[in-house]
Amino acid sequence: MRRRFCDSLRKEVDLLWERIFTHPFLIDLGEGQLPLDVFRFYVKQDYVYLLEFSRCLGIAAAKAEDRETMRTFASLLDASFTVEVEMLERLGQKIGIAADELRTSEPAPTNVAYTRHLLSVAYAGTVGEIMAAMLPCMWSYQEIGERLLDQSGLTRNPIYSEWCATYRTQEYMDLVSWYRRLVDDLASESGSLVRKKMRTHFVLSSRYEYLFWDMAYRKEAWPL
Amino acid sequence: MRRRFCDSLRKEVDLLWERIFTHPFLIDLGEGQLPLDVFRFYVKQDYVYLLEFSRCLGIAAAKAEDRETMRTFASLLDASFTVEVEMLERLGQKIGIAADELRTSEPAPTNVAYTRHLLSVAYAGTVGEIMAAMLPCMWSYQEIGERLLDQSGLTRNPIYSEWCATYRTQEYMDLVSWYRRLVDDLASESGSLVRKKMRTHFVLSSRYEYLFWDMAYRKEAWPL
Amino acid sequence: MRRRFCDSLRKEVDLLWERIFTHPFLIDLGEGQLPLDVFRFYVKQDYVYLLEFSRCLGIAAAKAEDRETMRTFASLLDASFTVEVEMLERLGQKIGIAADELRTSEPAPTNVAYTRHLLSVAYAGTVGEIMAAMLPCMWSYQEIGERLLDQSGLTRNPIYSEWCATYRTQEYMDLVSWYRRLVDDLASESGSLVRKKMRTHFVLSSRYEYLFWDMAYRKEAWPL
Amino acid sequence: MRRRFCDSLRKEVDLLWERIFTHPFLIDLGEGQLPLDVFRFYVKQDYVYLLEFSRCLGIAAAKAEDRETMRTFASLLDASFTVEVEMLERLGQKIGIAADELRTSEPAPTNVAYTRHLLSVAYAGTVGEIMAAMLPCMWSYQEIGERLLDQSGLTRNPIYSEWCATYRTQEYMDLVSWYRRLVDDLASESGSLVRKKMRTHFVLSSRYEYLFWDMAYRKEAWPL
Repeated sequence: MRRRFCDSLRKEVDLLWERIFTHPFLIDLGEGQLPLDVFRFYVKQDYVYLLEFSRCLGIAAAKAEDRETMRTFASLLDASFTVEVEMLERLGQKIGIAADELRTSEPAPTNVAYTRHLLSVAYAGTVGEIMAAMLPCMWSYQEIGERLLDQSGLTRNPIYSEWCATYRTQEYMDLVSWYRRLVDDLASESGSLVRKKMRTHFVLSSRYEYLFWDMAYRKEAWPL
Repeated sequence: MRRRFCDSLRKEVDLLWERIFTHPFLIDLGEGQLPLDVFRFYVKQDYVYLLEFSRCLGIAAAKAEDRETMRTFASLLDASFTVEVEMLERLGQKIGIAADELRTSEPAPTNVAYTRHLLSVAYAGTVGEIMAAMLPCMWSYQEIGERLLDQSGLTRNPIYSEWCATYRTQEYMDLVSWYRRLVDDLASESGSLVRKKMRTHFVLSSRYEYLFWDMAYRKEAWPL
Repeated sequence: MRRRFCDSLRKEVDLLWERIFTHPFLIDLGEGQLPLDVFRFYVKQDYVYLLEFSRCLGIAAAKAEDRETMRTFASLLDASFTVEVEMLERLGQKIGIAADELRTSEPAPTNVAYTRHLLSVAYAGTVGEIMAAMLPCMWSYQEIGERLLDQSGLTRNPIYSEWCATYRTQEYMDLVSWYRRLVDDLASESGSLVRKKMRTHFVLSSRYEYLFWDMAYRKEAWPL
Repeated sequence: MRRRFCDSLRKEVDLLWERIFTHPFLIDLGEGQLPLDVFRFYVKQDYVYLLEFSRCLGIAAAKAEDRETMRTFASLLDASFTVEVEMLERLGQKIGIAADELRTSEPAPTNVAYTRHLLSVAYAGTVGEIMAAMLPCMWSYQEIGERLLDQSGLTRNPIYSEWCATYRTQEYMDLVSWYRRLVDDLASESGSLVRKKMRTHFVLSSRYEYLFWDMAYRKEAWPL
């Protein structure tokens, strides 16, 4: 029964996520034909994003109710600096982004907007709200991974293939399952007010997921 | 000597603010020819913005070092709900925005991005950083007021005239002076690290000021 | 039905509050025989406490869900610097505490512990939690006011009488009613998890209320 | 030159720390004669303390300026749940504290006061302030370890010996050095205001360190 909260969130953003899956960035990527400079732009933005996402994990750890949840956040936070950052650094090297270039990347406007949304929820909200805001990133990447798997074009591009494989490992799927279970649990323990906010954050983060792909495709810059 | 920090901030954003002053929204407004529906859109967004801006004042009050600064923030926060909100509600009535419509306005994307920037600085930063992030709004409106004063077109439009007059009262100018003095004081007590962050926040908020006018002019909507 | 949350909180701390009402500080005060230096110590500590309590109001304003609640917090925060601080300053003058002495008072250990409890709840918790933590102070003073009213000894001491009268004004009682109603509302909108935390905060703050009177009676100092 | 900030902090608390080193708890422990039930009480309180300390590490990670500092906080936070918690759990088993008893320990009043101080600094302050508040715990344990090393009585008690050895490993000393270096660096980048607050937090945490040992020795309970 608890499972229903995430299921109902997923239903609510169904059309919105469909727009993500059919965005030219992911279509082109699945056909192995996404221009490399667009992918490079994306990787640099993702690297910056990951850092701010990690800050939210730190706050979630600080606010966690019980020792076990806290331990998991602590472990995820640590992994974001070892497993994930290193994955992006290795990927960066392969596509010609120097470590220094990666570290000094400036966030594009949509990236700033998305991460400030996450950070302000993290500081002002409950753990349930924080998780609901962070979930669309985790979860939509899993579905993207599953969808791209079927694309024959992807397999012809080893770089894109390898990137995509990250989100289809058992480890990653277990992580998303843990997130969803936690969000379901937290929703069931929460009142109508917090649940409403969780829903709002989830939808807004889903919008930002779409906008993030679009930002990368357009290699978005500040207008001034 | 202390005065120099705000002066140097002002210099840094000179071109950027010039872009604000010459944005079609303000040019059209100064000529009394801004379409009323565009102005209505702006007023509703400003109403939403003010609420989030007030949240930042609450956090600034909580973080203030001394009793006097805290008392001033408390007084500003209270005024934002009496003086400012009521000014917008009266203005809204005159241009055909029902109180209910005002209160249920949804923030446009740029408004969300701007206020999340302010909120995340408010929660994560020092009082100096919070003030530096909030200053461009306060200060640029004063300069906008001064510039528009010379426009003959404005005086032919009593609505726009009256709105503009708000930012040219002695009271408003005193408020901006207090903000600037506080930012100067806080900068002089801060180290290189916080000063650098104050500068960054000030520039980003200045960008958002430009984008806010542009958002209103385009009656920006979520792309999905 | 909503009323029941505060009622159940009140029941839970009944014995604990009885210990407050029968603490020698309040017994002696009610008999008009509390040594003035003990009362002076208390007033200085209360002055320091009020400042930290106000910080929590600032954060509560920042986190409030709706405009009306936010407006009330803003107004309470402002009042705490006008009405309440000034009341204590006037009282201080009458009993020989110079304004400077009041402003530079150092918090005793129990005062630090109590206010850090309030502040950490304010930063980490929901508005419901913040209110639940702040309520015992507001509410127990109202009951103290009612109890002391019957004491014939009190009326013979104009200073103590006047101090006590503050907590028996209609305005103060309305304020406590507003707090209780808000706590009831927030509890009814909250889930089991937040309600449990609200209860825990309320009990801890009630303990600190007792300890605060005891601190004053002992003129508590840091052991080192 | 940077080193001077921590050095000056250390000098400021010299008498206070001397009181720690000569507290009966540590004297008795060094003679191998501390009653086991007192040590058990201490271990349970330390276990609770560690959890709250870890929350502060989460917030410090969220607020860290640069990637490297953030990575270190993330790694410390993770280690606090693996290395340190497990050390206490193993120690607990040896002295007859069941895992469940450890996990459900309630914090004594001084423990609550100390951790709320740390948490409120963590939420309201800069990384420099957070570190300055956390440093006395880390650093004083290293000095305690060094002092106890010379005590012949300690070696006769394998439990106390082993506990003490934790704080004399190269790894622990490297950790304290890293903390001190970071505090020195952050102080040098900070202005007079933040440096003053860092000093205040460091002194208060040092006081709480003394009070913590005293709390354990007295097996402190809530008076009501």
